[in-house]
Amino acid sequence: MPRGERTLRLQHGSRIEALCVLGGHVRADVFGAAPAGAVAFGVKHTEGVSVDVLFRGRAEPEAVPGAGTRWPLDEGTALRFSMSRASSEVNDNKVRSGILGMGPPRGRTSLRISLDVDADQDGVVEKNSPNKASWAWGPEGHGAILLVSCDKEFPFIPPSDCGHEQVFNREGTTAPQSALCPAFPLPPLRNLSREGTSPGTNPFFGQRYVQVLGRRKLFHAVPYPGGAAELDFFVEGLRFPDETFSGLVSIHVSLLEPLAEGIPHSPIFTDTVVFRVAPWIMTPSTLAPVNLFVCSMKDNYLFTKEIQTLAAKAGCKLKVCFGYINRGDRWMQDEIELGYTHAPHKSFPVVLDSPRERGMEQLPIKELLGPDFGYVHKEPLFEATASLDSFGNVEVSPPVSVAGKEYPLGRILIGSSFPAPAGRRMTGLVRDFLYAQRVQAPVELYSDWLAVGNVNEFVTFVPTSDKKRFRMLLASPAACYRLFREKQKEGQGQATMFKGYSGTDTKRVTINKVLSNDVLTQQNQYVQRCIDWNRDILKKELGLLEEDIIDLPALFKLDKQGKAVPYFPNTVTMIVLAKDLGIPKPFGPVAGGECCLERRIRALLEPLGLCCRFLEDVASYHGSLGEVRCGTNVQRRPFAFKWWHCTP
Amino acid sequence: MPRGERTLRLQHGSRIEALCVLGGHVRADVFGAAPAGAVAFGVKHTEGVSVDVLFRGRAEPEAVPGAGTRWPLDEGTALRFSMSRASSEVNDNKVRSGILGMGPPRGRTSLRISLDVDADQDGVVEKNSPNKASWAWGPEGHGAILLVSCDKEFPFIPPSDCGHEQVFNREGTTAPQSALCPAFPLPPLRNLSREGTSPGTNPFFGQRYVQVLGRRKLFHAVPYPGGAAELDFFVEGLRFPDETFSGLVSIHVSLLEPLAEGIPHSPIFTDTVVFRVAPWIMTPSTLAPVNLFVCSMKDNYLFTKEIQTLAAKAGCKLKVCFGYINRGDRWMQDEIELGYTHAPHKSFPVVLDSPRERGMEQLPIKELLGPDFGYVHKEPLFEATASLDSFGNVEVSPPVSVAGKEYPLGRILIGSSFPAPAGRRMTGLVRDFLYAQRVQAPVELYSDWLAVGNVNEFVTFVPTSDKKRFRMLLASPAACYRLFREKQKEGQGQATMFKGYSGTDTKRVTINKVLSNDVLTQQNQYVQRCIDWNRDILKKELGLLEEDIIDLPALFKLDKQGKAVPYFPNTVTMIVLAKDLGIPKPFGPVAGGECCLERRIRALLEPLGLCCRFLEDVASYHGSLGEVRCGTNVQRRPFAFKWWHCTP
Repeated sequence: MPRGERTLRLQHGSRIEALCVLGGHVRADVFGAAPAGAVAFGVKHTEGVSVDVLFRGRAEPEAVPGAGTRWPLDEGTALRFSMSRASSEVNDNKVRSGILGMGPPRGRTSLRISLDVDADQDGVVEKNSPNKASWAWGPEGHGAILLVSCDKEFPFIPPSDCGHEQVFNREGTTAPQSALCPAFPLPPLRNLSREGTSPGTNPFFGQRYVQVLGRRKLFHAVPYPGGAAELDFFVEGLRFPDETFSGLVSIHVSLLEPLAEGIPHSPIFTDTVVFRVAPWIMTPSTLAPVNLFVCSMKDNYLFTKEIQTLAAKAGCKLKVCFGYINRGDRWMQDEIELGYTHAPHKSFPVVLDSPRERGMEQLPIKELLGPDFGYVHKEPLFEATASLDSFGNVEVSPPVSVAGKEYPLGRILIGSSFPAPAGRRMTGLVRDFLYAQRVQAPVELYSDWLAVGNVNEFVTFVPTSDKKRFRMLLASPAACYRLFREKQKEGQGQATMFKGYSGTDTKRVTINKVLSNDVLTQQNQYVQRCIDWNRDILKKELGLLEEDIIDLPALFKLDKQGKAVPYFPNTVTMIVLAKDLGIPKPFGPVAGGECCLERRIRALLEPLGLCCRFLEDVASYHGSLGEVRCGTNVQRRPFAFKWWHCTP
Repeated sequence: MPRGERTLRLQHGSRIEALCVLGGHVRADVFGAAPAGAVAFGVKHTEGVSVDVLFRGRAEPEAVPGAGTRWPLDEGTALRFSMSRASSEVNDNKVRSGILGMGPPRGRTSLRISLDVDADQDGVVEKNSPNKASWAWGPEGHGAILLVSCDKEFPFIPPSDCGHEQVFNREGTTAPQSALCPAFPLPPLRNLSREGTSPGTNPFFGQRYVQVLGRRKLFHAVPYPGGAAELDFFVEGLRFPDETFSGLVSIHVSLLEPLAEGIPHSPIFTDTVVFRVAPWIMTPSTLAPVNLFVCSMKDNYLFTKEIQTLAAKAGCKLKVCFGYINRGDRWMQDEIELGYTHAPHKSFPVVLDSPRERGMEQLPIKELLGPDFGYVHKEPLFEATASLDSFGNVEVSPPVSVAGKEYPLGRILIGSSFPAPAGRRMTGLVRDFLYAQRVQAPVELYSDWLAVGNVNEFVTFVPTSDKKRFRMLLASPAACYRLFREKQKEGQGQATMFKGYSGTDTKRVTINKVLSNDVLTQQNQYVQRCIDWNRDILKKELGLLEEDIIDLPALFKLDKQGKAVPYFPNTVTMIVLAKDLGIPKPFGPVAGGECCLERRIRALLEPLGLCCRFLEDVASYHGSLGEVRCGTNVQRRPFAFKWWHCTP
């Protein structure tokens, strides 16, 4: 029974001993317990208990003074008891109801029993919060928050926390855990009781815990310790919200009272607390960088030197992933997504490991997972993974406001095959996981027109210091054709592309040649339509105006399957480190000693306070259908905004 | 792209042919398409198209008259086209933008493309409802509703519709269907396109359908038929909402435009409709009965005769389930739960088949399932079923209002082992199913203290014609002891129970004997505490006052496992047929030629306009731990209230 009114049966001629839970009422039917023919009754009680008389059909109860008054005994007449402080000894308070022939019900010991949590979200557990049994979103919301224990406290033991996560993923359905789940409707929980650690020890770093509740242990009996004893329980989440787990977890404590030998105990009080498991949150490229990750390969020494310079300039740390970990896989962006999780008392980064399993699969567990660095992995059981499962195909926008609806943590962008019939799509397990976090409502875009099929091939976001705070950059064949026509008109039609380019397309390509290539023109008209389709969705779903969008010149060509690949290094697939941009060097037509693409891009971005640095990535990345961004990854500072203040 | 603004790229010096979707806008960047140095432009257009000029930084567009005006060409200047009616022929409307050296973009054919549904919930499909792409609960809500095709149209073919339901249940997880799901995120759907049936045929009874979309067919290409053609598609739900399916289904149509030979088609418009699959709804015992079901057994001829009389009196049909179907299983209440489903255009009864598989398992499919009588089955894959899975353990309250929150279809009551540590509980699959219907938010009660463990052993609801409309009846040992003490006081302590009783307890049991049995008294104190625990939850969760509750005298005893069984036939486990109650004959102490229990029960219920008929069920039901209600089942009239007007 939730805190509230509890029914107590008085017994004709008997003394009843009863426990009264502080904060609750006990209601006793006097009429029902009185002998036939009784017409009136009186009540006496000790000081620690307050007593009201309730009459059927009357809304207001009547308070009972210490002694003296008599009341008529009608059908429905009842007594209501409550106690304002816990008893110092058993049966220290008594109520005596004098009815003809009826003995005194008495011996009421009050008991404070309460599960306490941080329901007001200030990082401190409060006593018996009135809001602890429910969860509400928003700045005026309430409810306790549970972190997923997805980090690894001790570097020398295997990552057992994560093992659990994987076990849950593999088991999947809810059937097994529902069979014997009396009080704990949700499974992904491990409830720890501290034993023997000194008070004040951070429970997450202490060692001597005994598991009292969990997936296969759904209840735990504790003898009532008496007096004002407190028991400390520690709770950890074992799984982020996903398609089959809403994120809400209830824990109950029930007080059972013995009646007599050979008769089961009966329940007299239940207290409930509700936790929401904190979501996994993505960080947009507009947030400040903390660590920049890149792989050291045999062929990218110069590139990593340039990246090092860029990181130093942007004031973030460079973390190099060496060959024994990357095992020949250079696509740092695609293997992991660096996000974080957050509760009022703590926040830490969490890496989402892609279902894509190539050379670098050991990186997140071996190099990232550690104390206060969490790990989560989503791997489908049956489906093969494909290019759209790479995390270059998951981005997140900066905070946006869309027709009055706020997305203070931005919206996740996922590349998909929609609206084309059939095609490739990100695995449902990861998509469902992203949707289930709820605080960055995903938008699905159309990326399957690209050979690699990742959203970061046509869209990115850069920070600005103006009112809008950011611009969305889109790859734009139209902008490139416009630029090239301008240059042609200025008499630079013979300006040559790909100067010093180390890739395979080493023929002399001029502006005139590009503009007169009808096949290329048509292919780029098609690409522009595909990008415009996404542009229109992005404008609508992120609430953007034309002024919020910058079109970066880009050209694509179609491969034999009719999928688009960049014609020259795709500048939109840049790294964004605050104001410092590491942009794939486009090797555009050089006129007057300067690449007109670089010049145009500077002209578009530098007035916004951004600093463009063009990085040569042809041999090491672009030649294998990736760019600067695909070979790097950035751990960013978390949002200052608290996700529980969202209203999803 | 949702109906809205579509980006169109003009091309310097080229004529662009474009499709304009009625109800949408097309936006074309004039500045971006103009040659370098252009400073002004003019626009001409034919009558069927309306054109605005948009300027960067200006909120209001400027309408373009037929011809004549010139505008300055600044960055961000764009044209916006829309068409108010569909074209009669291709390229019948033109816009010509005169910019220095720029050819006329023209040839705009408008096209009406719309998926139409009944989003205003009046049972009639309307043209292009503005609300069709979303679903909102409540009396002011909107959104199309889909019935689950769970009935069987043709009695002579096997129940294939249901076969699908079972297939989905068995497969369970979402993984397989997500691999190639471009446009249809939810699987449990079969989309039928009619071919060759005459217009006006009820689509649900026609035969010649071709499946165009479904779980393994996620898209369907249709050539644009030209003109004002309409294509009819029929959609049916294949699965009620459950833990892994919210009930919402989106269907999209995308218009793809060819550009040139060898280049993929590009998307130019998408329309979306959202359906909610109608839930399965339970009917409380306060709704009018339609059909009363009972099994014909070797030993219950007299009982079925009495039931027949009762049914005739209550004006409902008696349906007898004979031996070849019941195969020795008499527990009609436990095998099935008779509910219904409802959409604006149609409603029909649906039987929920219990996971309990005993003799009667063929009943729902062989006898109930048929045209406009649906069937749904929930069977756990791995768990054994137990007594708490019997549908005597699922009841539903009448409509209630709880602290301002309305439950116009009542709340489902499920018996569980909470708050006791460990114990039996209903299988998660069924509990999750009941929660997932959303419109009758379940309340879990404590029933595991009973040997059979079903909620209908201690609670039922009867209709009344007063303001409250119903009373909740609770089994009450306290009421029984009170009555017996009254009778003892009146000098009837020697009155004997179980007169004419055919059960095993044939010793002479008097009131004095019952009242002096201390073990029985203590056991009933315990039972009363268990019932009071539920009483307190029911008062809180159904918003009931003491006056809304009637305590029916009952006695229990504990078996060797400490679980409660009725001491005499349990009167609360009655059948309710409107005002006519079929109550288990309690065989109470007879004084003055009358059973004092029957007399008390009449005194409690008859003033409310109810008619009590006591039915002897000892040999055929009570002796096997069941009562009248357990051996019967009632199909009731659906609620007049429309579930989509709920706000869950």
